[in-house]
Amino acid sequence: MTARVVLAYSGGLDTTVAIPYLAKMTGGEVVAVSLDLGQGGEDMEAVRQRALDSGAVESIVIDARDEFAEEYCLPTIQANGMYMKQYPLVSAISRPLIVKHLVEAAKEHGGTHVSHGCTGKGNDQVRFEVGFRDMNPDLEIIAPARDYAWTRDKAIEFAEANDVPIEQSAASPFSIDQNVWGRAIETGYLEDLWNAPTKDIYAYTEDPALGNAPDELIISFKAGKPVAIDGKPVTMLEAIEELNRRGGAQGVGRLDMVEDRLVGIKSREIYEAPGAMILIKAHEAMEDVTLERELARYKRLVDARWSEEVYDGLWFGPLKRSLDAFIASTQEHVNGDIRLVLHAGSIIINGRRSETSLYDFDLATYDSGDTFDQTMAKGFVKLHGLSSEIANRRDREAGK
Amino acid sequence: MTARVVLAYSGGLDTTVAIPYLAKMTGGEVVAVSLDLGQGGEDMEAVRQRALDSGAVESIVIDARDEFAEEYCLPTIQANGMYMKQYPLVSAISRPLIVKHLVEAAKEHGGTHVSHGCTGKGNDQVRFEVGFRDMNPDLEIIAPARDYAWTRDKAIEFAEANDVPIEQSAASPFSIDQNVWGRAIETGYLEDLWNAPTKDIYAYTEDPALGNAPDELIISFKAGKPVAIDGKPVTMLEAIEELNRRGGAQGVGRLDMVEDRLVGIKSREIYEAPGAMILIKAHEAMEDVTLERELARYKRLVDARWSEEVYDGLWFGPLKRSLDAFIASTQEHVNGDIRLVLHAGSIIINGRRSETSLYDFDLATYDSGDTFDQTMAKGFVKLHGLSSEIANRRDREAGK
Amino acid sequence: MTARVVLAYSGGLDTTVAIPYLAKMTGGEVVAVSLDLGQGGEDMEAVRQRALDSGAVESIVIDARDEFAEEYCLPTIQANGMYMKQYPLVSAISRPLIVKHLVEAAKEHGGTHVSHGCTGKGNDQVRFEVGFRDMNPDLEIIAPARDYAWTRDKAIEFAEANDVPIEQSAASPFSIDQNVWGRAIETGYLEDLWNAPTKDIYAYTEDPALGNAPDELIISFKAGKPVAIDGKPVTMLEAIEELNRRGGAQGVGRLDMVEDRLVGIKSREIYEAPGAMILIKAHEAMEDVTLERELARYKRLVDARWSEEVYDGLWFGPLKRSLDAFIASTQEHVNGDIRLVLHAGSIIINGRRSETSLYDFDLATYDSGDTFDQTMAKGFVKLHGLSSEIANRRDREAGK
Amino acid sequence: MTARVVLAYSGGLDTTVAIPYLAKMTGGEVVAVSLDLGQGGEDMEAVRQRALDSGAVESIVIDARDEFAEEYCLPTIQANGMYMKQYPLVSAISRPLIVKHLVEAAKEHGGTHVSHGCTGKGNDQVRFEVGFRDMNPDLEIIAPARDYAWTRDKAIEFAEANDVPIEQSAASPFSIDQNVWGRAIETGYLEDLWNAPTKDIYAYTEDPALGNAPDELIISFKAGKPVAIDGKPVTMLEAIEELNRRGGAQGVGRLDMVEDRLVGIKSREIYEAPGAMILIKAHEAMEDVTLERELARYKRLVDARWSEEVYDGLWFGPLKRSLDAFIASTQEHVNGDIRLVLHAGSIIINGRRSETSLYDFDLATYDSGDTFDQTMAKGFVKLHGLSSEIANRRDREAGK
Repeated sequence: MTARVVLAYSGGLDTTVAIPYLAKMTGGEVVAVSLDLGQGGEDMEAVRQRALDSGAVESIVIDARDEFAEEYCLPTIQANGMYMKQYPLVSAISRPLIVKHLVEAAKEHGGTHVSHGCTGKGNDQVRFEVGFRDMNPDLEIIAPARDYAWTRDKAIEFAEANDVPIEQSAASPFSIDQNVWGRAIETGYLEDLWNAPTKDIYAYTEDPALGNAPDELIISFKAGKPVAIDGKPVTMLEAIEELNRRGGAQGVGRLDMVEDRLVGIKSREIYEAPGAMILIKAHEAMEDVTLERELARYKRLVDARWSEEVYDGLWFGPLKRSLDAFIASTQEHVNGDIRLVLHAGSIIINGRRSETSLYDFDLATYDSGDTFDQTMAKGFVKLHGLSSEIANRRDREAGK
Repeated sequence: MTARVVLAYSGGLDTTVAIPYLAKMTGGEVVAVSLDLGQGGEDMEAVRQRALDSGAVESIVIDARDEFAEEYCLPTIQANGMYMKQYPLVSAISRPLIVKHLVEAAKEHGGTHVSHGCTGKGNDQVRFEVGFRDMNPDLEIIAPARDYAWTRDKAIEFAEANDVPIEQSAASPFSIDQNVWGRAIETGYLEDLWNAPTKDIYAYTEDPALGNAPDELIISFKAGKPVAIDGKPVTMLEAIEELNRRGGAQGVGRLDMVEDRLVGIKSREIYEAPGAMILIKAHEAMEDVTLERELARYKRLVDARWSEEVYDGLWFGPLKRSLDAFIASTQEHVNGDIRLVLHAGSIIINGRRSETSLYDFDLATYDSGDTFDQTMAKGFVKLHGLSSEIANRRDREAGK
Repeated sequence: MTARVVLAYSGGLDTTVAIPYLAKMTGGEVVAVSLDLGQGGEDMEAVRQRALDSGAVESIVIDARDEFAEEYCLPTIQANGMYMKQYPLVSAISRPLIVKHLVEAAKEHGGTHVSHGCTGKGNDQVRFEVGFRDMNPDLEIIAPARDYAWTRDKAIEFAEANDVPIEQSAASPFSIDQNVWGRAIETGYLEDLWNAPTKDIYAYTEDPALGNAPDELIISFKAGKPVAIDGKPVTMLEAIEELNRRGGAQGVGRLDMVEDRLVGIKSREIYEAPGAMILIKAHEAMEDVTLERELARYKRLVDARWSEEVYDGLWFGPLKRSLDAFIASTQEHVNGDIRLVLHAGSIIINGRRSETSLYDFDLATYDSGDTFDQTMAKGFVKLHGLSSEIANRRDREAGK
Repeated sequence: MTARVVLAYSGGLDTTVAIPYLAKMTGGEVVAVSLDLGQGGEDMEAVRQRALDSGAVESIVIDARDEFAEEYCLPTIQANGMYMKQYPLVSAISRPLIVKHLVEAAKEHGGTHVSHGCTGKGNDQVRFEVGFRDMNPDLEIIAPARDYAWTRDKAIEFAEANDVPIEQSAASPFSIDQNVWGRAIETGYLEDLWNAPTKDIYAYTEDPALGNAPDELIISFKAGKPVAIDGKPVTMLEAIEELNRRGGAQGVGRLDMVEDRLVGIKSREIYEAPGAMILIKAHEAMEDVTLERELARYKRLVDARWSEEVYDGLWFGPLKRSLDAFIASTQEHVNGDIRLVLHAGSIIINGRRSETSLYDFDLATYDSGDTFDQTMAKGFVKLHGLSSEIANRRDREAGK
């Protein structure tokens, strides 16, 4: 059987040259699949055509923006998905969606192999390959950068030798991954952890020090989903785009971190994700008002584990799905409005209201309407601390 | 035996009037104990004298600032102590220290009772009383506000009837608790969650919108403890004070949250804690560089539980102490420098260096010096995902 | 409005005398509600009549055996519900069902109060009262044993003075609670932890040392529910009853433990729960075959937390319900047969088979059919341990 | 430099033939290292000589029994170390000790390589290799069974061709690993999960159905360590040996399970570990009496994670060491006696006493000496359930 390689195609130099290279290495054909995830930049039709020009037998472009927003970004909001309490999983949640479409394309177009451009020291190879095997283990996986030690230099050499139509621009010093949920930047000088990021690496956010006037806005949630901004209904995709725009103008959503990769090393990463950061922070504030204490405490553990599973490439894994079930069961009453101010890099919550609030003015107030029966507290305090009291007494006596 | 009530004395109206009131209710004597925790405001000698003027048989002032910084704030830094991921436990960590000194004073001065001014619907009654019983259950506890429904109006009436020397200023609308670690504010209009805080409630922080020039600084850690700022050695207390000053000038450290109280209700709280926020954020960044991944993942759970225990008044509880042992074992190599920029309410980490870093340039780089063996990754990815792959296959087959 | 007290009525001396007593104390009427939870013993019609004879204006008996088995015992099986890893929550899961029926009876019969016979130092008062408030906080709660210090001696005195028709037998030295899920025994001499239980305290189990021949059986599960024993279809109730009978004959299911009560004290408890123990152990073995590793590891934490929530009286709490959602999502493929041997107090699993097994003979075998690619392991091991390797190297170097 | 391979040598066929094979493959020399971990069987001097006869340049035998008992078994007892709640980590805790001695031998004898006989689909390769890299990453690792696909058939062929002095007995159908802590058995027919183990596979335990008279004994603990049996002081090693003997005679400690291997597959495993099972069960019972509730609840999570880390080969990992610190901090007062009965496969606890008990008769009793203030409970119950009550009210109202 002739090999048919379904390739996750970005339109960039590496995957463009990979098309004839994969064809040669497998003696087969290449089907290029490109997803529009709101990454902006080049026209997707130009991307499609370039794959064909480079020798792909099929080239498919899929507008997955709404699907990405609804099926991948929204669950991340509901899980307050932050790896290491900081990183909103920008690349991590896009990989399983690409996997899904590649596996579907393989089915439709008779694919025998799937391929991606990731190296062997990053997280994305894991997310792609675990995803492929979860969805269809019969597809063989080729990772040229890792398995054939396929480098940029080799790619250029190969392109020249084989008349692949690349514009060999001066290589950008940045390694970028971006989509509507955020943008990830790596670049050489940042591998020294003491170097601060320079201003030229940002694209989604303005300099927070610009001094723009503060921007106050209201995000409305229904069942844990943002449904309106300043009273105007929005789709999930529109919400992210609007907040990228307004947050970006305020320099909101930048992140400079040292990250624990799944493959065992630490790496320096710069992110900008204004919409993601705003939405998660607002969602957390909405939950603070609408989730009961013990549930909220436990959900924080579940959220952290969810984020680890997704970071670790296990989007389609059984544990991730059961964590989803837990999270889904908590969102029904996460309703209401969060008012916040964006300014100079900060997101400041300053108001919240909800029809399904658990805040009870009559219990909380120190005003005359107070309905909290304070005499109950004495016994509560005594028994709440009783096991500790007994243990401390034992410790003292044993210490004698 | 005559009662001797050791009272946690703040110098304010309520506890001042409580002195003769407690004497009357118990038929005994009152010993006033006041702690300087860096709360600023009034001269402590004036506080001491006021207690005597109000009828206390003894009045003791303890400068506990360094003890508080070293024994209570530092463990909070090392635990990245944030209740609900936000609140740096400003009041929560001061109560056990007050308890400790009250119990010691009771021993020294023949106290039979201990007393505090907290109401029956807050957290602090729990922290006081569980602490008292943990340290010395033989001391009887009196909480006049809760047990005698002792209110401000009753206090004023009582003062007037009994010639207690109070200056009855127009009552402040704010209920404040403050120490060097931060400041907590509650006030009537904020009980409507939709109302934004007004500017007049802040004292430790300037308005972030003032437009001060950014302030870059370097915090140095040794074994998880901040030991220098911009190269200048500092004590723990000095570190907090210096960062309160510099962070406060930038509007850093404000927090507006809805909090899950231990007594079962939600309440609106405003905090400002510039030094605390900066130190915890810098400490987390230092850990990101120096703690191994699995340890770091687990420590986040331990940190969260530690914060809950401390919030819940269980500072002296057995679990808290064992969590301390876990945390202490992680800090040995948390060494190095964190560079950060304070500006307009934001804390932005932009550099880190450490002699005990786990970041390995030779493994992480994409440069020619790369020592990471990428061929190892293929097998890793396969076996990392194998149990999920098998489960997904089963699910598909079972679904047929 | 006249009080109408809906009483959880057991038929025993204490609640029988409580009927006229509650009527007297409230100046109102008492509605007695009794549930058949498979506790055996007295005829339920006799119980019903006794309440009327004692002055109840209504007396209701509800056969809740199937409901209890399906809605309370089954979730406990699926959560492998064991408090402190040992106690299968015998009383803990019966209280919320009683609550539910009392609240329904109050609605139907115009109840204004609900009442139970529990003391103030046990767990059951919590389960009853938190349940009542969760279901209907408008009902006032009366706990005579606790709130009126209503003791057995007072009850007998009151009965004699008021002609309540009790048979005042020599008081049993045992305090018993039992239902189809198990039996709990407390008694005076066991309050000395060093005393071993005597043989006369058991009713559900024979002496394990009797020397009966081993009994081998097969339990079949479908979606985490036991559906057949030895191939014969059973309802949930029948499964428990049958395994109580067969396990009891083998002395299986006895437990002697020191338990951490919610009210802060430790207590000695004896249980016998043959059916519960067998079903949970078999269910765990079925999960070992059908749940993926990471899901199974996490589910053990969820199971433990579920057990604590239920033990702590929070059956109707929000966290418990979300844990239910997690657990429910894991059971779909928990199908198959577990073969086990009951003998002399032991439950020995010795075989399992499942159409939805995750055990893969071709991967696991050392035979010639082996399909596991061992070369993958080398890279896996390297990267699995890499972060630890780097940390140990740092520790050595830092130690120099 | 000439290779010097330090081999973990068992004395069996595979590692015996591996000696000349490794010499040939590396062109170097082999140093055989054998540990006495109480596995019994062959005389260790014979093992030592066989390695020399097979071509080893050095052959070292180390009596590590006490070290194993004190440094590896005791921490497992204190962690109640049970993987998947069942498996007492028999092989998992022996590997790091072997690693330690191999790395020391390599240092002493100029080793350049380390080698083990494990295959590529088990857990032990991970434990060996992660351990080697943690202790000394400069040592190169050779795993002939995995890396050279070295099988038993090849070994026999090689032995015959190279005059290696093996007694080629009819190959045992069992694959066994054993030490004083327990015994692990795998064998072909058990790869069918439905097949029950046959009697011939057991060596440490008698048939539980034999009908021996029950054996009652008392284990005394000091700071979480078993120090006496029936009042007679024992070393850690003696405790295990004595309980292996007495437990084995009663058929105690057998286990038949389906295990989640780290490499992603499930496997069927049979274990017998009478001493381990008795000691862990007794230790848990001792903790039930001496650990405070919240600490005990959290320690169960820590214990489970500890067991996973150890199972997963991360004995020397940073997280394992911090979990050790937590556990160590809990054991100080785990003192006292546990009385238990061994009989027909069962371990039945029936008494406990302790000078450092947290059980308080005066609080727990229903006798006249009762000091528990039941009136405290009313307020406790109300506030304990308040957040759930409010949430349920909200849910009802939102459901309208």
